[in-house]
Amino acid sequence: MQKDKLTVLTNPKLTEAAAVIEKALAQRETLIVAGKCSVRYTGRAKSTLEPGERMLIIKEDGSLLVHRPVGYEPVNWQPSGSVFHVQAKADAIEVHAVRQKPRENVRVTFTNVFMVSALSLTDSGEFALYASEQDMHRAILLKPSLLEEGFKPISYEKKVEPGFVDVYGVDKEGRLVVVEVKRKTAGKDAVLQLARYIDAIKVKADRELRGVLVAPSLGKDVQRLLVTLGLEFKALDPKKCAKVLKRTEVTKLEKFFEQ
Amino acid sequence: MQKDKLTVLTNPKLTEAAAVIEKALAQRETLIVAGKCSVRYTGRAKSTLEPGERMLIIKEDGSLLVHRPVGYEPVNWQPSGSVFHVQAKADAIEVHAVRQKPRENVRVTFTNVFMVSALSLTDSGEFALYASEQDMHRAILLKPSLLEEGFKPISYEKKVEPGFVDVYGVDKEGRLVVVEVKRKTAGKDAVLQLARYIDAIKVKADRELRGVLVAPSLGKDVQRLLVTLGLEFKALDPKKCAKVLKRTEVTKLEKFFEQ
Repeated sequence: MQKDKLTVLTNPKLTEAAAVIEKALAQRETLIVAGKCSVRYTGRAKSTLEPGERMLIIKEDGSLLVHRPVGYEPVNWQPSGSVFHVQAKADAIEVHAVRQKPRENVRVTFTNVFMVSALSLTDSGEFALYASEQDMHRAILLKPSLLEEGFKPISYEKKVEPGFVDVYGVDKEGRLVVVEVKRKTAGKDAVLQLARYIDAIKVKADRELRGVLVAPSLGKDVQRLLVTLGLEFKALDPKKCAKVLKRTEVTKLEKFFEQ
Repeated sequence: MQKDKLTVLTNPKLTEAAAVIEKALAQRETLIVAGKCSVRYTGRAKSTLEPGERMLIIKEDGSLLVHRPVGYEPVNWQPSGSVFHVQAKADAIEVHAVRQKPRENVRVTFTNVFMVSALSLTDSGEFALYASEQDMHRAILLKPSLLEEGFKPISYEKKVEPGFVDVYGVDKEGRLVVVEVKRKTAGKDAVLQLARYIDAIKVKADRELRGVLVAPSLGKDVQRLLVTLGLEFKALDPKKCAKVLKRTEVTKLEKFFEQ
Protein backbone atom coordinates (compact mmCIF):
# COMPACT_ATOMS: atom_id res chain seq x y z
CA MET A 1 0.00 0.00 0.00
CA GLN A 2 1.22 3.45 -0.82
CA LYS A 3 1.11 6.14 1.83
CA ASP A 4 -1.52 8.75 1.17
CA LYS A 5 -0.48 12.28 1.98
CA LEU A 6 -3.73 12.90 3.80
CA THR A 7 -6.85 11.00 4.81
CA VAL A 8 -9.59 12.82 6.70
CA LEU A 9 -13.02 11.53 7.73
CA THR A 10 -15.52 13.70 9.54
CA ASN A 11 -18.18 12.17 11.77
CA PRO A 12 -17.33 8.67 10.55
CA LYS A 13 -18.94 5.46 11.75
CA LEU A 14 -16.82 3.77 14.38
CA THR A 15 -15.89 0.93 12.00
CA GLU A 16 -14.75 3.44 9.36
CA ALA A 17 -12.73 5.38 11.91
CA ALA A 18 -11.14 2.15 13.19
CA ALA A 19 -10.06 1.25 9.65
CA VAL A 20 -8.31 4.62 9.18
CA ILE A 21 -6.65 4.32 12.61
CA GLU A 22 -5.41 0.80 11.87
CA LYS A 23 -4.04 1.78 8.48
CA ALA A 24 -2.32 4.90 9.87
CA LEU A 25 -0.63 2.90 12.63
CA ALA A 26 0.40 0.13 10.24
CA GLN A 27 1.90 2.66 7.82
CA ARG A 28 3.46 4.76 10.57
CA GLU A 29 1.61 7.91 9.66
CA THR A 30 0.73 10.72 12.03
CA LEU A 31 -2.76 10.10 13.38
CA ILE A 32 -5.17 12.63 14.87
CA VAL A 33 -8.46 11.46 16.33
CA ALA A 34 -10.90 13.94 17.85
CA GLY A 35 -13.88 12.55 19.71
CA LYS A 36 -15.36 11.49 22.99
CA CYS A 37 -13.08 9.13 24.84
CA SER A 38 -11.98 7.81 28.20
CA VAL A 39 -8.39 6.84 29.06
CA ARG A 40 -6.84 4.31 31.40
CA TYR A 41 -3.14 4.20 32.16
CA THR A 42 -1.21 1.62 34.11
CA GLY A 43 2.54 1.54 34.44
CA ARG A 44 4.74 3.65 36.67
CA ALA A 45 1.53 4.61 38.44
CA LYS A 46 -2.12 4.37 37.46
CA SER A 47 -4.55 6.93 36.17
CA THR A 48 -8.06 7.13 34.84
CA LEU A 49 -9.61 9.86 32.76
CA GLU A 50 -13.40 9.95 32.63
CA PRO A 51 -15.20 10.43 29.30
CA GLY A 52 -14.85 13.77 27.58
CA GLU A 53 -14.10 15.28 24.17
CA ARG A 54 -10.40 15.29 23.35
CA MET A 55 -7.70 14.79 20.77
CA LEU A 56 -5.59 11.67 20.49
CA ILE A 57 -2.35 12.11 18.56
CA ILE A 58 -0.14 9.20 17.64
CA LYS A 59 3.01 10.10 15.76
CA GLU A 60 4.92 8.05 13.24
CA ASP A 61 7.45 6.97 15.89
CA GLY A 62 4.64 5.68 18.10
CA SER A 63 4.66 8.48 20.64
CA LEU A 64 1.18 9.12 21.96
CA LEU A 65 -0.54 12.23 23.33
CA VAL A 66 -4.03 12.81 24.67
CA HIS A 67 -4.90 16.51 24.78
CA ARG A 68 -7.89 18.05 26.51
CA PRO A 69 -9.33 21.29 25.06
CA VAL A 70 -7.38 23.37 27.60
CA GLY A 71 -3.82 23.38 28.92
CA TYR A 72 -0.51 23.06 27.09
CA GLU A 73 0.35 19.77 28.75
CA PRO A 74 -1.09 16.48 27.55
CA VAL A 75 -3.28 14.69 30.10
CA ASN A 76 -1.82 11.35 29.03
CA TRP A 77 1.29 10.71 27.02
CA GLN A 78 3.66 7.93 26.12
CA PRO A 79 7.06 8.25 24.49
CA SER A 80 7.92 6.35 21.30
CA GLY A 81 8.26 2.59 21.27
CA SER A 82 4.73 1.42 21.88
CA VAL A 83 3.03 -1.46 20.15
CA PHE A 84 -0.56 -0.61 19.18
CA HIS A 85 -3.70 -2.68 19.07
CA VAL A 86 -6.97 -1.35 17.70
CA GLN A 87 -10.25 -3.03 18.49
CA ALA A 88 -13.54 -1.95 16.94
CA LYS A 89 -16.52 -2.96 19.02
CA ALA A 90 -20.19 -2.25 18.34
CA ASP A 91 -20.24 0.89 20.47
CA ALA A 92 -16.58 1.84 20.89
CA ILE A 93 -13.07 1.81 19.45
CA GLU A 94 -10.24 0.83 21.76
CA VAL A 95 -6.76 2.04 20.94
CA HIS A 96 -4.30 0.22 23.13
CA ALA A 97 -0.62 1.25 23.39
CA VAL A 98 1.72 -1.15 25.16
CA ARG A 99 5.29 -0.26 26.01
CA GLN A 100 7.98 -2.46 27.57
CA LYS A 101 10.80 -1.25 29.85
CA PRO A 102 9.17 0.09 31.87
CA ARG A 103 5.91 -1.74 31.23
CA GLU A 104 3.30 0.88 30.41
CA ASN A 105 -0.14 0.57 29.06
CA VAL A 106 -2.46 3.29 27.73
CA ARG A 107 -5.97 2.41 26.63
CA VAL A 108 -8.02 5.09 24.86
CA THR A 109 -11.66 4.18 24.32
CA PHE A 110 -13.65 6.28 21.85
CA THR A 111 -17.44 6.11 21.90
CA ASN A 112 -17.78 8.88 19.36
CA VAL A 113 -15.41 10.14 16.67
CA PHE A 114 -15.81 13.64 15.21
CA MET A 115 -12.77 13.52 13.01
CA VAL A 116 -10.00 11.11 12.18
CA SER A 117 -7.03 12.24 10.18
CA ALA A 118 -3.98 10.36 8.96
CA LEU A 119 -1.09 12.45 7.67
CA SER A 120 2.20 11.60 6.11
CA LEU A 121 4.50 14.45 7.21
CA THR A 122 8.07 15.13 6.14
CA ASP A 123 10.09 17.27 8.49
CA SER A 124 13.84 17.60 8.50
CA GLY A 125 13.97 21.31 9.40
CA GLU A 126 16.63 22.22 11.92
CA PHE A 127 15.66 23.57 15.31
CA ALA A 128 18.09 26.17 16.66
CA LEU A 129 17.97 27.53 20.20
CA TYR A 130 19.77 30.77 20.97
CA ALA A 131 20.50 32.50 24.27
CA SER A 132 21.92 36.01 24.66
CA GLU A 133 24.44 36.86 27.37
CA GLN A 134 21.59 38.26 29.43
CA ASP A 135 19.65 35.02 28.93
CA MET A 136 22.73 33.20 30.26
CA HIS A 137 22.71 35.42 33.36
CA ARG A 138 19.05 34.59 33.94
CA ALA A 139 19.65 30.87 33.44
CA ILE A 140 22.39 30.93 36.09
CA LEU A 141 20.07 32.80 38.47
CA LEU A 142 17.31 30.27 37.91
CA LYS A 143 19.59 27.25 38.07
CA PRO A 144 22.76 28.23 39.94
CA SER A 145 24.15 24.68 39.63
CA LEU A 146 24.91 25.62 36.01
CA LEU A 147 27.87 27.46 37.56
CA GLU A 148 28.59 24.96 40.33
CA GLU A 149 26.84 23.02 43.09
CA GLY A 150 26.13 25.12 46.14
CA PHE A 151 26.43 28.48 44.38
CA LYS A 152 23.94 31.06 45.65
CA PRO A 153 23.43 34.19 43.53
CA ILE A 154 23.04 37.48 45.40
CA SER A 155 22.54 39.90 42.56
CA TYR A 156 23.12 40.35 38.86
CA GLU A 157 24.12 43.17 36.56
CA LYS A 158 25.47 44.79 39.70
CA LYS A 159 27.16 48.16 39.29
CA VAL A 160 30.83 48.05 40.21
CA GLU A 161 33.36 50.83 39.50
CA PRO A 162 34.42 49.90 35.96
CA GLY A 163 30.96 48.69 34.84
CA PHE A 164 28.48 45.95 35.70
CA VAL A 165 29.22 42.55 37.19
CA ASP A 166 27.15 39.92 35.35
CA VAL A 167 26.36 37.66 38.30
CA TYR A 168 27.49 37.99 41.87
CA GLY A 169 27.05 35.37 44.62
CA VAL A 170 28.46 33.14 47.30
CA ASP A 171 29.90 29.65 46.93
CA LYS A 172 29.20 26.74 49.26
CA GLU A 173 32.21 27.68 51.39
CA GLY A 174 30.97 31.23 51.84
CA ARG A 175 33.44 32.88 49.46
CA LEU A 176 32.25 35.70 47.23
CA VAL A 177 32.05 34.77 43.54
CA VAL A 178 32.19 37.30 40.72
CA VAL A 179 30.97 35.82 37.42
CA GLU A 180 31.68 37.22 33.98
CA VAL A 181 29.62 35.66 31.19
CA LYS A 182 30.44 35.49 27.47
CA ARG A 183 28.28 33.74 24.92
CA LYS A 184 31.14 33.07 22.52
CA THR A 185 34.71 31.86 22.94
CA ALA A 186 36.24 34.08 25.65
CA GLY A 187 39.38 36.02 24.79
CA LYS A 188 41.98 37.89 26.86
CA ASP A 189 39.73 40.96 26.96
CA ALA A 190 37.14 39.03 28.96
CA VAL A 191 39.78 37.87 31.43
CA LEU A 192 41.13 41.39 31.92
CA GLN A 193 37.59 42.72 32.37
CA LEU A 194 36.93 40.13 35.10
CA ALA A 195 40.28 40.98 36.73
CA ARG A 196 39.29 44.68 36.88
CA TYR A 197 36.03 43.82 38.67
CA ILE A 198 37.88 41.61 41.13
CA ASP A 199 40.38 44.40 41.85
CA ALA A 200 37.55 46.88 42.43
CA ILE A 201 35.62 44.56 44.76
CA LYS A 202 38.69 43.23 46.60
CA VAL A 203 39.18 46.60 48.27
CA LYS A 204 35.80 46.43 49.98
CA ALA A 205 35.35 42.66 50.38
CA ASP A 206 35.56 41.25 53.91
CA ARG A 207 36.16 37.70 52.74
CA GLU A 208 37.82 35.54 50.14
CA LEU A 209 36.96 36.39 46.54
CA ARG A 210 36.79 34.18 43.44
CA GLY A 211 36.48 35.26 39.82
CA VAL A 212 34.87 32.87 37.35
CA LEU A 213 34.75 33.38 33.61
CA VAL A 214 31.78 31.60 32.05
CA ALA A 215 31.79 30.95 28.30
CA PRO A 216 31.33 28.07 25.87
CA SER A 217 35.12 27.90 25.42
CA LEU A 218 38.42 29.72 25.94
CA GLY A 219 40.53 31.29 23.20
CA LYS A 220 44.13 30.44 22.53
CA ASP A 221 46.56 31.19 25.39
CA VAL A 222 43.72 32.54 27.52
CA GLN A 223 43.94 29.71 30.05
CA ARG A 224 47.50 30.79 30.96
CA LEU A 225 46.44 34.39 31.60
CA LEU A 226 43.53 33.17 33.76
CA VAL A 227 45.84 31.06 35.92
CA THR A 228 48.35 33.89 36.25
CA LEU A 229 45.62 36.20 37.51
CA GLY A 230 44.20 33.55 39.86
CA LEU A 231 40.90 33.34 37.99
CA GLU A 232 38.79 30.33 37.00
CA PHE A 233 36.94 29.11 33.91
CA LYS A 234 33.59 27.35 33.69
CA ALA A 235 32.45 26.04 30.30
CA LEU A 236 28.79 26.76 29.62
CA ASP A 237 26.94 26.51 26.32
CA PRO A 238 24.32 29.22 25.58
CA LYS A 239 22.06 26.48 24.18
CA LYS A 240 22.05 24.74 27.52
CA CYS A 241 20.99 28.03 29.11
CA ALA A 242 18.23 28.47 26.53
CA LYS A 243 16.88 25.02 27.40
CA VAL A 244 16.94 25.79 31.09
CA LEU A 245 15.03 29.01 30.50
CA LYS A 246 12.47 27.38 28.27
CA ARG A 247 11.95 24.31 30.46
CA THR A 248 11.88 25.89 33.88
CA GLU A 249 8.33 25.68 35.06
CA VAL A 250 6.38 28.65 33.87
CA THR A 251 4.91 29.57 37.24
CA LYS A 252 8.36 29.47 38.81
CA LEU A 253 9.72 31.79 36.17
CA GLU A 254 6.81 34.15 36.38
CA LYS A 255 7.20 34.39 40.14
CA PHE A 256 10.89 35.00 39.69
CA PHE A 257 10.51 37.87 37.25
CA GLU A 258 7.71 39.45 39.26
CA GLN A 259 10.02 39.86 42.22
CA MET B 1 -22.08 33.50 15.14
CA GLN B 2 -22.87 30.11 16.54
CA LYS B 3 -20.05 27.69 17.25
CA ASP B 4 -19.93 24.83 14.80
CA LYS B 5 -19.07 21.48 16.33
CA LEU B 6 -16.57 20.80 13.60
CA THR B 7 -15.07 22.54 10.58
CA VAL B 8 -12.53 20.72 8.44
CA LEU B 9 -10.91 21.82 5.22
CA THR B 10 -8.44 19.64 3.32
CA ASN B 11 -5.86 21.18 1.04
CA PRO B 12 -7.50 24.61 1.30
CA LYS B 13 -6.25 27.76 -0.34
CA LEU B 14 -4.24 29.87 2.09
CA THR B 15 -6.97 32.52 2.25
CA GLU B 16 -9.60 29.86 3.07
CA ALA B 17 -7.38 28.34 5.74
CA ALA B 18 -6.71 31.78 7.24
CA ALA B 19 -10.47 32.42 7.49
CA VAL B 20 -11.02 29.17 9.43
CA ILE B 21 -8.05 29.94 11.70
CA GLU B 22 -9.29 33.44 12.42
CA LYS B 23 -12.81 32.26 13.18
CA ALA B 24 -11.58 29.43 15.44
CA LEU B 25 -9.38 31.82 17.44
CA ALA B 26 -12.15 34.42 17.70
CA GLN B 27 -14.62 31.81 18.94
CA ARG B 28 -12.10 30.09 21.20
CA GLU B 29 -12.35 26.73 19.52
CA THR B 30 -9.65 24.10 19.39
CA LEU B 31 -7.65 24.56 16.21
CA ILE B 32 -5.50 22.02 14.40
CA VAL B 33 -3.47 23.07 11.37
CA ALA B 34 -1.30 20.57 9.52
CA GLY B 35 1.03 21.89 6.90
CA LYS B 36 4.44 23.16 5.98
CA CYS B 37 5.61 25.85 8.35
CA SER B 38 8.54 27.56 10.00
CA VAL B 39 8.57 28.89 13.56
CA ARG B 40 10.32 31.76 15.30
CA TYR B 41 10.27 32.21 19.04
CA THR B 42 11.57 35.12 21.09
CA GLY B 43 11.10 35.49 24.81
CA ARG B 44 13.01 33.77 27.60
CA ALA B 45 15.46 32.77 24.89
CA LYS B 46 15.24 32.65 21.11
CA SER B 47 14.69 29.79 18.72
CA THR B 48 14.14 29.20 15.05
CA LEU B 49 12.67 26.15 13.39
CA GLU B 50 13.33 25.77 9.68
CA PRO B 51 10.50 24.84 7.31
CA GLY B 52 9.00 21.37 7.62
CA GLU B 53 5.63 19.58 7.81
CA ARG B 54 4.07 19.79 11.25
CA MET B 55 0.94 20.25 13.31
CA LEU B 56 0.00 23.48 15.02
CA ILE B 57 -2.52 23.10 17.83
CA ILE B 58 -4.11 26.08 19.54
CA LYS B 59 -6.53 25.25 22.30
CA GLU B 60 -9.56 27.20 23.45
CA ASP B 61 -7.57 28.71 26.35
CA GLY B 62 -4.93 29.97 23.94
CA SER B 63 -2.23 27.44 24.75
CA LEU B 64 -0.16 26.66 21.68
CA LEU B 65 1.76 23.59 20.57
CA VAL B 66 3.85 22.87 17.50
CA HIS B 67 4.42 19.16 17.02
CA ARG B 68 6.85 17.56 14.62
CA PRO B 69 5.98 14.11 13.22
CA VAL B 70 8.20 12.40 15.82
CA GLY B 71 8.76 12.77 19.56
CA TYR B 72 6.26 13.18 22.39
CA GLU B 73 7.44 16.69 23.23
CA PRO B 74 6.33 19.74 21.27
CA VAL B 75 9.14 21.58 19.49
CA ASN B 76 7.51 24.92 20.36
CA TRP B 77 4.87 25.61 22.96
CA GLN B 78 3.27 28.44 24.81
CA PRO B 79 1.00 28.25 27.84
CA SER B 80 -2.43 29.86 27.86
CA GLY B 81 -2.84 33.62 27.83
CA SER B 82 -1.59 34.58 24.40
CA VAL B 83 -3.16 37.13 22.12
CA PHE B 84 -3.30 35.93 18.52
CA HIS B 85 -2.92 37.74 15.23
CA VAL B 86 -3.46 36.04 11.89
CA GLN B 87 -2.14 37.50 8.69
CA ALA B 88 -2.89 36.03 5.29
CA LYS B 89 -0.31 37.01 2.67
CA ALA B 90 -0.14 35.96 -0.95
CA ASP B 91 2.18 33.06 -0.28
CA ALA B 92 1.92 32.44 3.46
CA ILE B 93 -0.23 32.60 6.59
CA GLU B 94 1.35 34.01 9.71
CA VAL B 95 -0.07 33.01 13.07
CA HIS B 96 1.41 35.21 15.73
CA ALA B 97 0.98 34.48 19.46
CA VAL B 98 2.03 37.21 21.89
CA ARG B 99 2.18 36.67 25.62
CA GLN B 100 2.98 39.20 28.37
CA LYS B 101 4.71 38.41 31.66
CA PRO B 102 7.10 37.16 30.62
CA ARG B 103 7.02 38.68 27.15
CA GLU B 104 6.99 35.82 24.68
CA ASN B 105 6.35 35.74 21.04
CA VAL B 106 5.75 32.76 18.74
CA ARG B 107 5.32 33.25 15.00
CA VAL B 108 4.26 30.26 12.91
CA THR B 109 4.41 30.81 9.16
CA PHE B 110 2.59 28.34 6.93
CA THR B 111 3.42 28.24 3.24
CA ASN B 112 1.22 25.21 2.63
CA VAL B 113 -1.79 23.87 4.54
CA PHE B 114 -2.87 20.23 4.19
CA MET B 115 -5.66 20.37 6.70
CA VAL B 116 -7.23 22.91 8.99
CA SER B 117 -9.71 21.82 11.59
CA ALA B 118 -11.68 23.81 14.17
CA LEU B 119 -13.38 21.83 16.91
CA SER B 120 -15.66 22.78 19.73
CA LEU B 121 -14.85 20.24 22.44
CA THR B 122 -16.59 19.74 25.78
CA ASP B 123 -14.54 18.01 28.42
CA SER B 124 -15.29 17.97 32.11
CA GLY B 125 -14.16 14.39 32.76
CA GLU B 126 -12.17 13.97 35.96
CA PHE B 127 -8.55 12.86 35.81
CA ALA B 128 -7.51 10.62 38.69
CA LEU B 129 -3.92 9.63 39.42
CA TYR B 130 -3.31 6.65 41.63
CA ALA B 131 -0.10 5.33 43.17
CA SER B 132 0.19 2.00 45.00
CA GLU B 133 2.39 1.66 48.07
CA GLN B 134 5.05 0.14 45.85
CA ASP B 135 4.75 3.13 43.52
CA MET B 136 5.34 5.35 46.55
CA HIS B 137 8.53 3.38 47.37
CA ARG B 138 9.75 3.90 43.83
CA ALA B 139 8.95 7.61 43.91
CA ILE B 140 11.02 8.01 47.08
CA LEU B 141 13.90 6.10 45.47
CA LEU B 142 13.75 8.31 42.40
CA LYS B 143 13.31 11.54 44.32
CA PRO B 144 14.59 11.02 47.89
CA SER B 145 13.82 14.64 48.79
CA LEU B 146 10.16 13.52 48.94
CA LEU B 147 11.20 12.10 52.33
CA GLU B 148 13.65 14.83 53.27
CA GLU B 149 16.60 16.80 51.90
CA GLY B 150 19.82 14.85 52.00
CA PHE B 151 18.21 11.42 52.33
CA LYS B 152 20.10 8.69 50.44
CA PRO B 153 18.26 5.42 49.86
CA ILE B 154 20.34 2.24 50.20
CA SER B 155 17.77 -0.44 49.45
CA TYR B 156 14.05 -1.09 49.35
CA GLU B 157 11.75 -3.94 50.20
CA LYS B 158 14.65 -5.21 52.28
CA LYS B 159 14.07 -8.43 54.19
CA VAL B 160 14.26 -7.90 57.96
CA GLU B 161 13.20 -10.50 60.58
CA PRO B 162 9.47 -9.67 60.84
CA GLY B 163 8.96 -8.90 57.12
CA PHE B 164 10.21 -6.35 54.59
CA VAL B 165 11.33 -2.79 55.23
CA ASP B 166 9.82 -0.52 52.56
CA VAL B 167 12.73 1.86 52.10
CA TYR B 168 16.03 1.90 53.91
CA GLY B 169 18.66 4.64 53.74
CA VAL B 170 20.91 7.18 55.38
CA ASP B 171 20.10 10.78 56.31
CA LYS B 172 22.36 13.77 55.80
CA GLU B 173 23.91 13.27 59.22
CA GLY B 174 24.76 9.64 58.50
CA ARG B 175 22.02 8.09 60.61
CA LEU B 176 20.21 5.01 59.33
CA VAL B 177 16.60 5.66 58.33
CA VAL B 178 13.94 2.96 58.21
CA VAL B 179 10.88 4.07 56.23
CA GLU B 180 7.44 2.48 56.41
CA VAL B 181 5.03 3.65 53.71
CA LYS B 182 1.23 3.62 53.79
CA ARG B 183 -0.93 4.97 51.00
CA LYS B 184 -3.87 5.73 53.27
CA THR B 185 -4.21 7.32 56.71
CA ALA B 186 -1.76 5.44 58.93
CA GLY B 187 -3.12 3.78 62.08
CA LYS B 188 -1.51 2.34 65.18
CA ASP B 189 -0.83 -0.94 63.35
CA ALA B 190 1.53 0.87 60.98
CA VAL B 191 3.39 2.47 63.90
CA LEU B 192 3.79 -0.86 65.70
CA GLN B 193 4.97 -2.49 62.48
CA LEU B 194 7.64 0.20 62.06
CA ALA B 195 8.63 -0.19 65.72
CA ARG B 196 9.16 -3.93 65.19
CA TYR B 197 11.51 -3.27 62.25
CA ILE B 198 13.42 -0.74 64.29
CA ASP B 199 13.79 -3.23 67.17
CA ALA B 200 15.02 -5.91 64.79
CA ILE B 201 17.58 -3.64 63.09
CA LYS B 202 18.73 -1.88 66.29
CA VAL B 203 20.43 -5.08 67.47
CA LYS B 204 22.75 -5.11 64.45
CA ALA B 205 23.05 -1.39 63.71
CA ASP B 206 26.38 0.29 64.42
CA ARG B 207 24.94 3.80 64.41
CA GLU B 208 21.97 5.91 65.28
CA LEU B 209 18.65 4.75 63.86
CA ARG B 210 15.53 6.71 62.85
CA GLY B 211 12.12 5.34 62.01
CA VAL B 212 9.89 7.38 59.69
CA LEU B 213 6.29 6.59 58.94
CA VAL B 214 5.24 7.96 55.54
CA ALA B 215 1.54 8.32 54.77
CA PRO B 216 -0.91 10.97 53.54
CA SER B 217 -2.10 11.49 57.13
CA LEU B 218 -2.13 10.02 60.63
CA GLY B 219 -5.15 8.47 62.35
CA LYS B 220 -6.57 9.66 65.65
CA ASP B 221 -4.21 9.36 68.63
CA VAL B 222 -1.50 7.88 66.42
CA GLN B 223 0.81 10.88 66.82
CA ARG B 224 1.07 10.23 70.56
CA LEU B 225 2.07 6.58 70.04
CA LEU B 226 4.68 7.68 67.47
CA VAL B 227 6.25 10.14 69.89
CA THR B 228 6.21 7.60 72.74
CA LEU B 229 8.09 5.13 70.56
CA GLY B 230 10.54 7.78 69.33
CA LEU B 231 9.36 7.55 65.74
CA GLU B 232 8.65 10.27 63.16
CA PHE B 233 5.92 11.07 60.64
CA LYS B 234 6.27 12.48 57.13
CA ALA B 235 3.10 13.41 55.25
CA LEU B 236 3.21 12.28 51.62
CA ASP B 237 0.32 12.10 49.18
CA PRO B 238 0.25 9.11 46.79
CA LYS B 239 -0.84 11.48 44.01
CA LYS B 240 2.34 13.47 44.44
CA CYS B 241 4.30 10.22 44.07
CA ALA B 242 2.33 9.31 40.95
CA LYS B 243 3.24 12.67 39.42
CA VAL B 244 6.90 12.22 40.28
CA LEU B 245 6.90 8.79 38.67
CA LYS B 246 5.12 9.99 35.57
CA ARG B 247 7.19 13.14 35.18
CA THR B 248 10.64 11.85 35.95
CA GLU B 249 12.53 11.87 32.73
CA VAL B 250 11.96 8.66 30.88
CA THR B 251 15.60 7.90 30.23
CA LYS B 252 16.43 8.38 33.89
CA LEU B 253 13.70 5.98 34.91
CA GLU B 254 14.66 3.42 32.34
CA LYS B 255 18.26 3.51 33.49
CA PHE B 256 17.11 3.15 37.06
CA PHE B 257 15.00 0.07 36.45
CA GLU B 258 17.64 -1.55 34.28
CA GLN B 259 20.10 -1.52 37.14
